[in-house]
Amino acid sequence: MDSIIWEKGSLKLLDQTRLPAEVTYLECCDYRQVAAAIRRLQVRGAPAIGIAAAYGFVLGAAEYQGESFSNFAHNVREVAKELASTRPTAVNLFWALERMLARLTKIEGLAPDRWVPALEEEALAIHREDLEMNRQIGWWGNQVIEAGAQILTHCNAGALATGGYGTALGVIRAAHQAGKNISVYACETRPLLQGARLTAWELMQDQIPVTLIADNMAGYLLQQGKISLVVVGADRIAVNGDVANKIGTYSLAVLAHHHQVPFYIAAPVSTFDFKIMSGRDIPIEERSPEEICILGNSAIAPPGVPVYNPAFDITPSRYVTGYITDRGILKPPFTKA
Amino acid sequence: MDSIIWEKGSLKLLDQTRLPAEVTYLECCDYRQVAAAIRRLQVRGAPAIGIAAAYGFVLGAAEYQGESFSNFAHNVREVAKELASTRPTAVNLFWALERMLARLTKIEGLAPDRWVPALEEEALAIHREDLEMNRQIGWWGNQVIEAGAQILTHCNAGALATGGYGTALGVIRAAHQAGKNISVYACETRPLLQGARLTAWELMQDQIPVTLIADNMAGYLLQQGKISLVVVGADRIAVNGDVANKIGTYSLAVLAHHHQVPFYIAAPVSTFDFKIMSGRDIPIEERSPEEICILGNSAIAPPGVPVYNPAFDITPSRYVTGYITDRGILKPPFTKA
Repeated sequence: MDSIIWEKGSLKLLDQTRLPAEVTYLECCDYRQVAAAIRRLQVRGAPAIGIAAAYGFVLGAAEYQGESFSNFAHNVREVAKELASTRPTAVNLFWALERMLARLTKIEGLAPDRWVPALEEEALAIHREDLEMNRQIGWWGNQVIEAGAQILTHCNAGALATGGYGTALGVIRAAHQAGKNISVYACETRPLLQGARLTAWELMQDQIPVTLIADNMAGYLLQQGKISLVVVGADRIAVNGDVANKIGTYSLAVLAHHHQVPFYIAAPVSTFDFKIMSGRDIPIEERSPEEICILGNSAIAPPGVPVYNPAFDITPSRYVTGYITDRGILKPPFTKA
Repeated sequence: MDSIIWEKGSLKLLDQTRLPAEVTYLECCDYRQVAAAIRRLQVRGAPAIGIAAAYGFVLGAAEYQGESFSNFAHNVREVAKELASTRPTAVNLFWALERMLARLTKIEGLAPDRWVPALEEEALAIHREDLEMNRQIGWWGNQVIEAGAQILTHCNAGALATGGYGTALGVIRAAHQAGKNISVYACETRPLLQGARLTAWELMQDQIPVTLIADNMAGYLLQQGKISLVVVGADRIAVNGDVANKIGTYSLAVLAHHHQVPFYIAAPVSTFDFKIMSGRDIPIEERSPEEICILGNSAIAPPGVPVYNPAFDITPSRYVTGYITDRGILKPPFTKA
């Protein structure tokens, strides 16, 4: 099932806030709808956000067809700014927008009616390449998975979070497809339950054995020797290898380290931020208290209770066994070349 | 607010499954209702379960008034068996029932109409002594709390979990009452959210500053140096100091250890099981998958997803800085004397 579908002039996003109860697509014909969908996490996952933003960029550009190039470019840059303002942590968003802006600088020489198609071509390439990178990540990741492995993952770094196939779940899919008889423990991932709602659902669709746990059960599983390795995605990776990823990742990394269980990050090159030297400089989004206090329509905490709700945390590189990328399993420091 | 109220011939239990939305009491006139309330977690928390079971024992005994002592004692032992079968992990349940059974053996010489009042007296003593032990725990615990401490706790080891005042929250209450300007981070405690629903509520009622977090945020708080110490309750403590407590406790203990933050257990003597040498021998209750998959009336995971739902975990004694008891801050091995 594709979570991001581009049909000329319209972007369809599988609404991830409604899964698994409902499989419905949100149709965006306006970049403002795309920005809102990113903010509301209807599309989420670092690579998927980048792809959606690239298509949003195209929708925005289409609004300014017929203007002079300098007006067109000015307005499209404003569109990019709005799309960039939606979420602060995942770098793939900025990476994709920068790539679109780089293409923008190269289209002035084209006939005006070719500007938007050229940008569309770039967005389609970002999408297509992401899917291909995920298959490469899966191929590389499979090299470190032993037969019968019991793999712990957190949040959703799957087909839903990417252009398809997934990063952490791409590794899991590749090992499953290689007949390694693996099984998965999925942390439910409070507050928004991406593990329960998305990862469990995605793996069940592919008939990959999955067991759901509450986040606080991971340590007990590790203590019992039930976990062979941990693999998660990433929202941003600094030059020194520090990783921003879904809140709870750091706890898992320390717990894996303590139990001498390998802890892998799976991410495409678009997740590396070569301008950021260490995790200290990665901005961490804090989200609304309601995410913790309200579930569905029910209050699950006393009204007015103070809440701390960081959406991500930083895992220092010393806890990471390896970075499974489309270019192989890498070690920091990371350089662009 | 009292969570367990005994009025001659009737036990009122504050229904903890309905907090914080509703403050309602469940009235039990039959020991079978008490057993059901323990099974359903309407009364929960190791010491509170023991107290409720003791009163349940009295309700059961009252059914057999007028019989010969041997019949009476036989039937009351059957009542105790049923009450003991409700939950396997917390030892206070068995401790309280054994104490009631010990009293049973001593009442044969009394006039038959004094049998039930004598048992009632024992249950009232268990309840009263638990409250007193909690105040002692608070007094001792306060000795290790520094001014301005930011204290992390898990689940609910509060007034609701005990005869009043609380064990871990008794320590927090004592430090607060001593004017130490402490503040608390409460882990919400999935799956049943005792931290969000009960601990946050209890502390807000007492105007003790509390911030609610999802369980998976604890590591990130520790990494940031925001936690001065961790204090939690216990459901059973082995002779060697291994502790059974709410699932997630072990993860917190490892994380605290890794960050060199003190990790305390607060529990009354009724929590020590002198027949169990190590945590390996403590039975861990597994509960229904629905606790993880359903919240309120909403499914939060795909139908039929396999789930692992242990209600407790075991924290080895090497992670425990100290055991705050009514008899002082102790170190293992623990002996009865």
